[in-house]
Amino acid sequence: MNDVTLSLDEVRDLATRALLANGCNQANADAVADTVTAAERDGCKSHGLFRIPGYVKSLKNGKINGQSTPVVMQPGPCIVKVDGDRGLAPLALQMARAPLIEAARKNGMAALAIRRSHHYAALWPETEALAIEGLVGMAFVNSPPYMAPAGGKAPFFGTNPMSFAWPRPDGGAVVWDQATAATARGELQIAKRDGHAAPECAGIDRDGNPTTDPAAILEGAQLPFGGYKGGAIALMVDLLCGPLIDEVSSQEVAAEDNGDGGPATGGELVLAIDPGHFGGANAIARGERLLDALSSMDGVRLPGNRRLAARAQTPTHGAAIPASLHQAIQDLL
Amino acid sequence: MNDVTLSLDEVRDLATRALLANGCNQANADAVADTVTAAERDGCKSHGLFRIPGYVKSLKNGKINGQSTPVVMQPGPCIVKVDGDRGLAPLALQMARAPLIEAARKNGMAALAIRRSHHYAALWPETEALAIEGLVGMAFVNSPPYMAPAGGKAPFFGTNPMSFAWPRPDGGAVVWDQATAATARGELQIAKRDGHAAPECAGIDRDGNPTTDPAAILEGAQLPFGGYKGGAIALMVDLLCGPLIDEVSSQEVAAEDNGDGGPATGGELVLAIDPGHFGGANAIARGERLLDALSSMDGVRLPGNRRLAARAQTPTHGAAIPASLHQAIQDLL
Repeated sequence: MNDVTLSLDEVRDLATRALLANGCNQANADAVADTVTAAERDGCKSHGLFRIPGYVKSLKNGKINGQSTPVVMQPGPCIVKVDGDRGLAPLALQMARAPLIEAARKNGMAALAIRRSHHYAALWPETEALAIEGLVGMAFVNSPPYMAPAGGKAPFFGTNPMSFAWPRPDGGAVVWDQATAATARGELQIAKRDGHAAPECAGIDRDGNPTTDPAAILEGAQLPFGGYKGGAIALMVDLLCGPLIDEVSSQEVAAEDNGDGGPATGGELVLAIDPGHFGGANAIARGERLLDALSSMDGVRLPGNRRLAARAQTPTHGAAIPASLHQAIQDLL
Repeated sequence: MNDVTLSLDEVRDLATRALLANGCNQANADAVADTVTAAERDGCKSHGLFRIPGYVKSLKNGKINGQSTPVVMQPGPCIVKVDGDRGLAPLALQMARAPLIEAARKNGMAALAIRRSHHYAALWPETEALAIEGLVGMAFVNSPPYMAPAGGKAPFFGTNPMSFAWPRPDGGAVVWDQATAATARGELQIAKRDGHAAPECAGIDRDGNPTTDPAAILEGAQLPFGGYKGGAIALMVDLLCGPLIDEVSSQEVAAEDNGDGGPATGGELVLAIDPGHFGGANAIARGERLLDALSSMDGVRLPGNRRLAARAQTPTHGAAIPASLHQAIQDLL
């Protein structure tokens, strides 16, 4: 496949211009471009420039408000709520970050509930940002129903990812971000585009039969990782970022969506916990002992290590994207 | 196998007497007997009377303080901390429940951190108790290293269970409680006792080879459910109930334990979230819509349904336990 290699500045510039040319104001374009650039920097192809055409489609048909002005509220000492004004999530997340961090530092823990927002990106940028500030971060988001529950034959849950981040003493973080689907939907989309097979157990076709054809799975249903245990986590994620905060469940997302393939509306829940209020200075030291012991085991690597390795490379080597995608985004300018 | 059927009152009485006869004071014996009885009521055999011989062993050799007086502290508006005084966890949990619920109702969320305690039971009793009070509950606990990380060949994590509970409008709850190991250790112990094979992917032997021999897995290492994704959850659980609250990681548990097979020391973290501060009345109504839709799907059942079915039966039918276990507990009186 023909690739084009872009510097991270070029990634950011291309994303920003495509968004500005298609209905985003500067604040929204900048926030989304930050997220897209961070994904390309970390080698998370399925959350990088790959997403721009979908964003643009939904901006142009009016599903997403590119001029959104998120409203941040603090109804209590450890609760931050944001009305996303039907915009893309990055601006809402950016505006809520400082109040969330402050509330967690003051009280030991705090929650951020975002409603009326369109989330379409990785969760690790928001949990990692908390861990860099010395906090433990957890985040949950749902999506239109793509995944069957354990035992079921039809889509019910979104891929319902969850992320967790733990702070390290040098301002670093150990971060994981994983779909409760066995395979990320973006990976299936890329497998379909590139003509690759999907992993075993990734999903079922429309008739409920197991298949490794990514196109058949995308039309049928993905499956949770680890069977009913992954399904239980999908249920938790759905309840936390939907009903808990008066937002749509995965299944309801579909009814409200226009089916354009762009990011659907919905909620997101982020939790921040300050170890200083729990284990104090010992918390981080004990965490390091655990992480050092784990990463020194044969055959084991810490979650997120692949992203950190890419992060060390792309500032000098650039990010490679398919020429067809590059052209498709150029055509949006 | 020869079974003895006991009424739930007989279960409670037998547990209480065995604990009182072996070093527990009344408060500790009652709290533990409550947990054991709830497990037998719900058909959770691996957390019922099956645990009593292990408790007694550790009470007799002094690892566990049967006379513990847990100390409950509230260093901030939404944090409850308990020093378990080296006792069994049920009394600490019982004493902390009301302050935790009150803090969550007042502030929208609260955390309970228990240190210096010996946890050996299911987590669902504590999260379900929160959900019955209208709160969302999450709980995390670690244990001695029984499970290899994804890619690893030796034990590092405990089975590191996590539980989640969601409140239903009738005072009921949807609750799940699952080891991040592919198979609960108690189930492997029972499979070994009864001469059954372990499930595929449950674990590896001492040399790192896959096996379905429960004895070989118990000497080797269990494996996380769903591969590296389950391993990521095990890491989160370990960090939350260990380092975060200045307690031991799974690996450190082993160093502090006397290896008697009874419950090891460690921490537990419980989170409580009040939907009233987030989605208000809509939260529960939306949750019901989700749960009703999910439970009406072909082939799908809600987490915990098997427990609830047992709960409906045992008050009249009693709880069956192996005659050998019944005799072993009688011998402790």
